[in-house]
Formats: sequence, structure tokens, C-alpha cells
Amino acid sequence: MNKPILGIIGGVGPLATAYFMEVLIKKTPAKTDQDNMPMIVFNDPQIPDRTAYILDHEQANPQPEMVKVARWLQDAGADYIAIACNTAHYFYDAIAKSVDIPVVNIMRETSRHLAQSVGKGATIGLLATEGTVSSHVFQDCLESEGLSCRVPGDEDQRRVMSLIYDGVKANAPYDPMELVRIAEKLKGEGCDAVVCGCTELSVIYQDLQDDPTTEVPEWLYDSLDILAEKCVAIYQWARKADGDIRM
Amino acid sequence: MNKPILGIIGGVGPLATAYFMEVLIKKTPAKTDQDNMPMIVFNDPQIPDRTAYILDHEQANPQPEMVKVARWLQDAGADYIAIACNTAHYFYDAIAKSVDIPVVNIMRETSRHLAQSVGKGATIGLLATEGTVSSHVFQDCLESEGLSCRVPGDEDQRRVMSLIYDGVKANAPYDPMELVRIAEKLKGEGCDAVVCGCTELSVIYQDLQDDPTTEVPEWLYDSLDILAEKCVAIYQWARKADGDIRM
Repeated sequence: MNKPILGIIGGVGPLATAYFMEVLIKKTPAKTDQDNMPMIVFNDPQIPDRTAYILDHEQANPQPEMVKVARWLQDAGADYIAIACNTAHYFYDAIAKSVDIPVVNIMRETSRHLAQSVGKGATIGLLATEGTVSSHVFQDCLESEGLSCRVPGDEDQRRVMSLIYDGVKANAPYDPMELVRIAEKLKGEGCDAVVCGCTELSVIYQDLQDDPTTEVPEWLYDSLDILAEKCVAIYQWARKADGDIRM
Repeated sequence: MNKPILGIIGGVGPLATAYFMEVLIKKTPAKTDQDNMPMIVFNDPQIPDRTAYILDHEQANPQPEMVKVARWLQDAGADYIAIACNTAHYFYDAIAKSVDIPVVNIMRETSRHLAQSVGKGATIGLLATEGTVSSHVFQDCLESEGLSCRVPGDEDQRRVMSLIYDGVKANAPYDPMELVRIAEKLKGEGCDAVVCGCTELSVIYQDLQDDPTTEVPEWLYDSLDILAEKCVAIYQWARKADGDIRM
């Protein structure tokens, strides 16, 4: 087995996991099946809803199951781990501490990428779940990179949640342009860029990219896309550096 | 962990594997992340090219590595296995014999489905790799279900191989309509239906479905789509029947 192997804590959500694999493959400079990155994906639907727990600690806690999957991936041979869910990064420290292999942090990588691409001092609009927004973990990451953060108003935040839960997660129809309209409003309110900070929104971002009649605004970024880029870079570096994982 | 767990021998090819997961998820009647099927995917790029070996036994034999992944999936907790590659089914008997859990056979399921949908006695056009076509395994499956089979002429077969290897597997641009043109020619030559019998062609089939300006002919079937339907049906049956896997 080629090393290093990427382990993916999947199923959070399932479609976002499949899309994450697709982005990883498309970003790998592979000309044949054999040039691709080895990956182990555990699509675990038993991980309880992250936002539900963050908003109400009486709900089922997803942390123990995610820690279990992380350890399982390590035992199965993974050399580094990625989680295809932003909200899950509320539990990042506990997951990272539970294994001896590195866990790539989607929020940290996205914040670094935005600080470089958009520039320090910029204001970033954050489209994410209620759980992510209220926990403030993503905002803290952005701020530690010298960025300001703005979230949608209550009505638009409800629309974002509906796209995520009533649309993508529920396997039900939705209007991808709704995402662009909410992002454009944040842009109009002074944001320099807007980021899809929920992997279900990344699925909608892909819909927009796949639709030849739509142009995705260049100031709209996708956290899953940035995570995939980082994972491919780690793999390529490690291939050159004899398996050494450099975060 | 919810049972049963589907194990997927992936990486053959990688994009087809990601697409297979997507189809599985979209076919599952799930309203939340937690309603979805548990899956373990091993995307193993070290499995040598199947067609290269079938056409020339001096080339690397993919069977030992696929058997290794099948056993690994079983040890990891999988209750049944699917392989996201038609050509790999040349090695089906060896893989199925190497584990104690059932391995769903894409060619057998596709042939059964076509016999039911198109009707026994029908002629099916087969779009597949050189390896699949020359090994005759898919044709034998179709014939055992009372169907006749027709493959493209040399020039079109070369075009099919180019879509698979120079297009999808090489991560390079291709024209999805090329697939429709080749299928239409087979239809014109007397085929009642045409089947995408290679999972890279399934990726192109998806492109056609995602493009709002294109209509996919109703007589064009996709083997990966049929495999996904079978896997979802197995899962749903087992959930009702206390884990019993019924093929």
C-alpha cells in the first residue's frame, strides 16, 4: 500500500464525504488509477448531529463516536486524518488528542488560505450551521489569522440552515442560487469574501460549478475545497519526503 | 455501528468510487445523516490495471491486491462487499472465495435488471473496456439471463477506451456526448438497450444526467446505478430481517 494513507471521518454528512473524495481525486495530478492517493473512508451514520448537541448539551454527544472512528482509522493504517464536516471541528481537540497521527483542521486551513488569498485585515462572510456560528470556533480561527468575520442576519441564517438540513442532508430539492443570493447580501454589507463553512454548502457550491449556465463569484470560497487542496499537498510532500507528514 | 456495513473495494477507478458513494446515498431514503448506510471504502491505487492484465498476462496481476482489500474490508467489519469496477469482475470468483461475506456481482445484477426491464430475448449493446469485452464475462452473464449482446465495432471500441483512459481516468477533458453517439449507433444496429458496463462510463453517464441541456436516452442503462440499487435493497432488507444479508 502506497503511503501515506488519508483516513476520512465520513458520514458527516454522507454526500459531503462523497464530494470530498471527488475533489481530492480531481485535485491530484494523476494520469492513471495507480497515481491516485490511497484513502480509507469510514462513512459512519451513527455520529449524532453536531449542531443539535452544540445548541443543546442534553442532546446526544457526537464526540465519543467520532473519537472511535478516528482511532479505528489509525488502527486500520491511516497516516493522517481529515473530517468532512466543519461543525465537527467543535470537537477537534478531543479527536486530535485521541490519536497519534495528525488531523487536518478545515477551519485553520481555510482561515490561512483566506488570509493569503484575500489578505489580512479583510472581512470574511461565514456561511455555516447554527452550531458552527454559535460555537464561534470558525470565527476565532479567522480572527487569529488577522481576518474579521460577519455572519448572516437571523432570516438568512435560517435560510442557510434550511439549505443544509431540508435540502442536502434530506436528499430533497433546493435552489442552489439561494446560496449565491445570501452570499451576495453579505458582500453588499461589506464582506471582501464569503466562505462556505459547512460541507453541505460545499455540495451546493459544486452544483453551481457543474451548472454551465451559472458563474460562481470569484470571491466565494469553499472550505472543503481548501481542505482537499491541503490533503493533496500533504500527500505530495510526504511522497517526496519519505513518508514524513508535514502539516 | 449500524449493521450491515457495506465494504467497497475502491480506487478502480477512484472517481467511479466517489460517484458510487454518491449514487448509494442518493438512492437511500434518508432524511438525516443518521438514516444513511454505513460504509467502509478502501480506495487502493495499488491495484494494477485490470484490462492491461486481461489482455496480456505478462502484466501485473491485480487479483492478489484485490483479494487483500476484500479480506481487509471483512476484518474491518464489513458485512457485504461491492466492487466499483466492472472489469475487476473477471477476478470475481477468486475475490468472492477469499472472504466469508457476500460480494455483490455488478454484471450479474445488471444482467438480471436488464432481463426484467428490457425483457428476455432482447439485444443489449455493451459499452465496456477491452478487458471486459475480450474476457466475455459480461456477455456470458447477459446470455445466461436470456439476452443477446452486441459490442461496438473496432473504431467505436477505441473511442470507448479513449473516453475511459484518456478522459475520466486521466482527469482530462472529454465530450460526454461521444458516449451517446456510440450508444445511438448500437441502437441503430438493432440493440434494444445499451448499457454502460464500465464504471468510468458511469461517471460520464452522471455528467449527462447533471447537464440540464442534455436528455439521457431512456434505453441507456448504467451498471453502477443498478449495483447501487441492489446494495441499498440489501441494506434495507437486512435492517428489517435482523442483519440477514439476502442477495
